[in-house]
Amino acid sequence: MEPASRTPGVLGLQVLLCSSLLLNALLVAHHFLSALPAPSELLGATSNGGGSLSWSLQAARDAESVAATGCSGHGRVFLDGIVGEDGRPGCECNTCFQGPDCSVRTANCTVDADSGDPMFLEPYWMRHAEASAVVFSGWHRMSYRATDGVFQSVELERSIKQLHRAVGNAVADDKHMVFGTGSVQLLSALVYALSPDSNSGSSAGVVATAPYYAAYKSSTVLFDSRENHWEGNTAAWANASAGNATRNEDIIEFVTSPNNPDAQLRKPVVGGASAIVDHAYYWPHFTHIPEPADEDVMIFTVSKLSGHASSRFGYSQT
Amino acid sequence: MEPASRTPGVLGLQVLLCSSLLLNALLVAHHFLSALPAPSELLGATSNGGGSLSWSLQAARDAESVAATGCSGHGRVFLDGIVGEDGRPGCECNTCFQGPDCSVRTANCTVDADSGDPMFLEPYWMRHAEASAVVFSGWHRMSYRATDGVFQSVELERSIKQLHRAVGNAVADDKHMVFGTGSVQLLSALVYALSPDSNSGSSAGVVATAPYYAAYKSSTVLFDSRENHWEGNTAAWANASAGNATRNEDIIEFVTSPNNPDAQLRKPVVGGASAIVDHAYYWPHFTHIPEPADEDVMIFTVSKLSGHASSRFGYSQT
Repeated sequence: MEPASRTPGVLGLQVLLCSSLLLNALLVAHHFLSALPAPSELLGATSNGGGSLSWSLQAARDAESVAATGCSGHGRVFLDGIVGEDGRPGCECNTCFQGPDCSVRTANCTVDADSGDPMFLEPYWMRHAEASAVVFSGWHRMSYRATDGVFQSVELERSIKQLHRAVGNAVADDKHMVFGTGSVQLLSALVYALSPDSNSGSSAGVVATAPYYAAYKSSTVLFDSRENHWEGNTAAWANASAGNATRNEDIIEFVTSPNNPDAQLRKPVVGGASAIVDHAYYWPHFTHIPEPADEDVMIFTVSKLSGHASSRFGYSQT
Repeated sequence: MEPASRTPGVLGLQVLLCSSLLLNALLVAHHFLSALPAPSELLGATSNGGGSLSWSLQAARDAESVAATGCSGHGRVFLDGIVGEDGRPGCECNTCFQGPDCSVRTANCTVDADSGDPMFLEPYWMRHAEASAVVFSGWHRMSYRATDGVFQSVELERSIKQLHRAVGNAVADDKHMVFGTGSVQLLSALVYALSPDSNSGSSAGVVATAPYYAAYKSSTVLFDSRENHWEGNTAAWANASAGNATRNEDIIEFVTSPNNPDAQLRKPVVGGASAIVDHAYYWPHFTHIPEPADEDVMIFTVSKLSGHASSRFGYSQT
């Protein structure tokens, strides 16, 4: 065939075909290059130029697949849930629902509403799924130390201070921060820290104004320390302080603001006592914030702030 | 144009072109359908038929990008590391290295080798990157309860028992398991649990055979409880037990097997005492396993088993 013999139509077809085939080749190449895991030897700097995923892909698929499983709106599937006969974690049903997809209502079932489970915040995190997703590698921060030789995450501390500045509920910038496995652990640690040395012969009395959080009493009694002991309601001390100059240095007072269960914004009652101010609920979704809190010893917890109760994270600022 | 006037060559071109265009359309459609986040309203059952990712994609990309960052082999980047001027977490350098990519050796620097950091296991987890990756959603197990109303993960307990069966280092199946924030927390909890009630007028003596792990003494002394006290080395009791029938019910003995630092496979020394057997290092990568451990009270920790020291997870089996 000589080129001169072709009609313009055939030439056009050929140009179109070539372009189309070239496009085919590009798309096929793109598809396979982005689908194949990037080669990596101990995950060196060579892998992952940009959009493609390798080692995290399967875990991400598993997580999305679990999140998309339906439990009739009466339960949830978790990645680390109990694995069923099909080798996959199954639905964990809300109280009074049962069956593989939680669709069966349990007969004569009573729901126990006496719980502080913060599940009302779950839809918020589902709506912000992309912003709150976290991918952990198997070798994430294996060391005992958290950040550059420090035992506590410097970045987390910075984020918490930034949050308090944005919300305006606490003066955090000049405070020293200590992280704990839930705030209850820190309550005990603070009672210990504020108690006199038992070799001095004295023992601190621990008090709170009724109605108060039961763990103030139970944790103090549990440790049965020589350095402190539970002394009950503040009522007696409040009257005594008003009347005369009783020495209160060895009193440790738990103050909850707002209080649980009566929602009062409380102040210390015993003059001269060491106050541990529990601000677990001092956030705008639980109370109004008349001014940023600025006590010497303050306690916060994510079980109330964000609703992540099972992650057991609290912090104290002193 | 009538079809009859076409040459076979032009017809072939047209068929090829049509096929090619169709393939293009399919590939383009596939590309965009898999790249776009699947629509989801509170992540219902509609999203994610299979291969495509939506809410976890960005987090997975961030994690892989961080993992692929080079720190000259003398440091690491972590997702939650300190954010630099470019808005991204930077290299955290090993001791004696510095600079943005940890390539500069610090002059006259001495490495402190006196640390139990289990970083020698890091390359193992990097080699098993895909199998050990975990993707957390923002609403993962927010409740105080872990599995179906239980406060502890049933699936994790099952996996731990399976592991002990496979390794053959402990008889775990008939044991009751308690999880703790690191094993040190459980050491204290066990001393508490094995002590007599202080109202009975007695106080348990806590002992260990030297050389022993310093936390046995320091944690007992720290709590300064009315129910127990540190009594030092077992040497005195060992002699006494051999000679006469001294009552040892109120002695709590820490036994580490293999011991740290002398690697001895130890047995309890004080007859009649309550033994807390610390099997932190009773794994085949630290010692040989003559037989499965089967004591009444055993302690294990992932900081030694898998090297995940900062995840603070220990468990006791009783």
